[in-house]
Amino acid sequence: MPNTLYLPELREMLANDDRAELAEFCVALHSARTAEFMEGLTASESWAVLQHTDATNREEIFGYFEQDKQIDMLETLDRTEMGQLIGDLPPDDRVDLLQEVDPQVVKELLPLVPAEERRDILRLQAYPEDTAGAVMTTELARLSESLTVREALEEIGRQARELETIYYIYIVDDENHLRGLVSARQLVAAMGHDETLIGELMERDLVTANVGDDQEDVARTVARYDLLAIPVIDQEHHLVGIITHDDVIDVVREEAAEDAHRFGAIDPLDVGYLQTSILTLIWKRGMWLVLLLFAALFTAFALDRYEGDLNKWKWLVLFIPLVISSGGNSGSQSATLVITGLTMGHITLDDWLRIALRELAQGLLLGGVLAAIAYVAAAVLIGDAASALVVPVTVLLVVVCGTLTGSLLPLLFRRFGLDPAMMSTPFVAAIIDIVGVVIYMQVALAIL
Amino acid sequence: MPNTLYLPELREMLANDDRAELAEFCVALHSARTAEFMEGLTASESWAVLQHTDATNREEIFGYFEQDKQIDMLETLDRTEMGQLIGDLPPDDRVDLLQEVDPQVVKELLPLVPAEERRDILRLQAYPEDTAGAVMTTELARLSESLTVREALEEIGRQARELETIYYIYIVDDENHLRGLVSARQLVAAMGHDETLIGELMERDLVTANVGDDQEDVARTVARYDLLAIPVIDQEHHLVGIITHDDVIDVVREEAAEDAHRFGAIDPLDVGYLQTSILTLIWKRGMWLVLLLFAALFTAFALDRYEGDLNKWKWLVLFIPLVISSGGNSGSQSATLVITGLTMGHITLDDWLRIALRELAQGLLLGGVLAAIAYVAAAVLIGDAASALVVPVTVLLVVVCGTLTGSLLPLLFRRFGLDPAMMSTPFVAAIIDIVGVVIYMQVALAIL
Repeated sequence: MPNTLYLPELREMLANDDRAELAEFCVALHSARTAEFMEGLTASESWAVLQHTDATNREEIFGYFEQDKQIDMLETLDRTEMGQLIGDLPPDDRVDLLQEVDPQVVKELLPLVPAEERRDILRLQAYPEDTAGAVMTTELARLSESLTVREALEEIGRQARELETIYYIYIVDDENHLRGLVSARQLVAAMGHDETLIGELMERDLVTANVGDDQEDVARTVARYDLLAIPVIDQEHHLVGIITHDDVIDVVREEAAEDAHRFGAIDPLDVGYLQTSILTLIWKRGMWLVLLLFAALFTAFALDRYEGDLNKWKWLVLFIPLVISSGGNSGSQSATLVITGLTMGHITLDDWLRIALRELAQGLLLGGVLAAIAYVAAAVLIGDAASALVVPVTVLLVVVCGTLTGSLLPLLFRRFGLDPAMMSTPFVAAIIDIVGVVIYMQVALAIL
Repeated sequence: MPNTLYLPELREMLANDDRAELAEFCVALHSARTAEFMEGLTASESWAVLQHTDATNREEIFGYFEQDKQIDMLETLDRTEMGQLIGDLPPDDRVDLLQEVDPQVVKELLPLVPAEERRDILRLQAYPEDTAGAVMTTELARLSESLTVREALEEIGRQARELETIYYIYIVDDENHLRGLVSARQLVAAMGHDETLIGELMERDLVTANVGDDQEDVARTVARYDLLAIPVIDQEHHLVGIITHDDVIDVVREEAAEDAHRFGAIDPLDVGYLQTSILTLIWKRGMWLVLLLFAALFTAFALDRYEGDLNKWKWLVLFIPLVISSGGNSGSQSATLVITGLTMGHITLDDWLRIALRELAQGLLLGGVLAAIAYVAAAVLIGDAASALVVPVTVLLVVVCGTLTGSLLPLLFRRFGLDPAMMSTPFVAAIIDIVGVVIYMQVALAIL
């Protein structure tokens, strides 16, 4: 929701060309808040306001605008000015942003971006989506190991004015091979020992990521080691970029949302729900719904095979939904436990046997409890305690079958390199539906 | 999986009391890797190894042990030494850890923790779980606004040896009211201007959290503003702690797992799947399964009401699973979209009407597609094109009903201050099951 509190004042300042007040507005607050107060302005009004502050602050405030507004500005405002602005944006953010801008506009803008930044954009764009290379930024504090602490402090003082982060300073040799790292804390703490060489101070055992690594794995490593940033290296161990803590938080949140979507049988959305067109939503949901409908048709055909038996014992029909939902629910619970366990790193593929045994035990116990309740209800509804036995026996079998299928299918998916979250709740439920109907009818034939 | 590569060597070093090599082992690698190599050692062997390094490195390596091992060490090793170790641990981590240790042991350990740290533990323990106060650490870089840049650098050089992070330095007045913040970068960049006052350099517009804030909201704020750490203040605006980026990543991952569990109709687990006892799992799953079973019993009773009609048109039975799963699946998709949208901050309660309209449109379109497929299948299976119309009409109505219920129920839950993720997939499905059966039979009665 745009904050409209300051809009009239801002527009008045613009109308009066009140430079001093506009300049003050741009620096008084945290850039994120300044951006919020500007939400309601049009693209050109926003740009007019941003003329009253320096390039660094301008790109920072711009960075906090909603993506829709950023795209609007890049697409509609003066190309030359936007080319310059793109050059000032953080390297990782501008690549992500340009992906969303009309390709025709990008083609016109790119030649207007300063040469060095343009090369950087083309290099980063070359990395496949969701890899470390695509998330990293190329802006980082870099020093030679032959500097002394005093020289390093002076050099970092210079770099600090241009860089976003100097919390980790990376030490490289003449050919840009990553050699080590000193933290800003170490450097400040070593201030008394001006002549110590950085090479003696630095940590050599670094946790690194490769440009081709999956972003989710990198995020897990950063979380495991509590890092502020992780250096990204190529195959020859050249330092090509870093991934910072804020991008890691974004990756973790994005991946959680993607998993949740797969889990609910929806192809993950690229943007927010309200920004996604109805047609895209239809497509991302429809493909799964149609697949699941065909699974349900199997159930119908399976029931059709037993039509004679269903006619003989009419009350069997009443418990079809109960039987299949017991299996589906316990199955989705198991799938949830296993998929979340894999994501959090609490379980691995090697634990499969232990998981299967635990799920078997749970299936028996949970199935037993549900069977007992279902038996009472069935006996009351049917009025025949002996025939009613079909229901609890089926529930027990279906629940065990649900826990085993729900837990082992995601492991199988992971084993074959597929995303275990694709074993969505509705998918597990659909499989159990068919199996459940067959078990139900076979149990009925055996008991009645 | 413990890394057993170094275990024999480590045990030999311990047996030979090879101090130099043990000391080297403790510092050669990143503490997280050192901890991994020690995974296979017993509690007392691990402690024996850690004797060969200084207290800072010792608590750092200890911090990377698996929680089970940490608990084992605290519970079984010499109480006095463990009391000292607890004093050295980061304030937030030790409070979390002590929560898992046998309360009797904690009672014996606490008096052995140095007085200042003990008071700190008691203070942090007082904050309710999942609040900012419970996640924050009390260790932070703090300066008075009357210092000059040179004095500040000297003071921070002293504090840097003891603190985990000095990336943000908080500026307070004499009564510890939070006044502002300077970043290490600003301080280093200002090194030329030794006599500038910190008060002139600092940012005054800070993003803060209150001790009582929900940890999930705080994590969202940190992600929104790309912060490295957020200061936590009490009602009188005293600076009481900070929450750092690594804890925020942990909160985001934890909350995602919790949401996934609720979504799969399981009460969130406190520890990993394999660490949770079967009985706990039974309880956390069983309560929901029993609730869902009762919902399914309703469906059985609803079907019972229509027994006469089901006898008249026997083929109706075949499509019961299909009809209710179409509704359940589209309903869980809608619930997933809305809950994820709320979590990611893409939608708010105010959007409810827009969401309802979008879901209505999707329900009509998706329902239309599914109805068309279902009609063909039904006509084939029944062999009567006119009667078969019951199936597609029902599917359309049930899908629309599913998308509306699935999207609006989570919003309703949020509206009344409940966790929308409680509107789990199985729960939405259970509601649609009952409604679906009633719609199905009413449509049949109307058409046939």
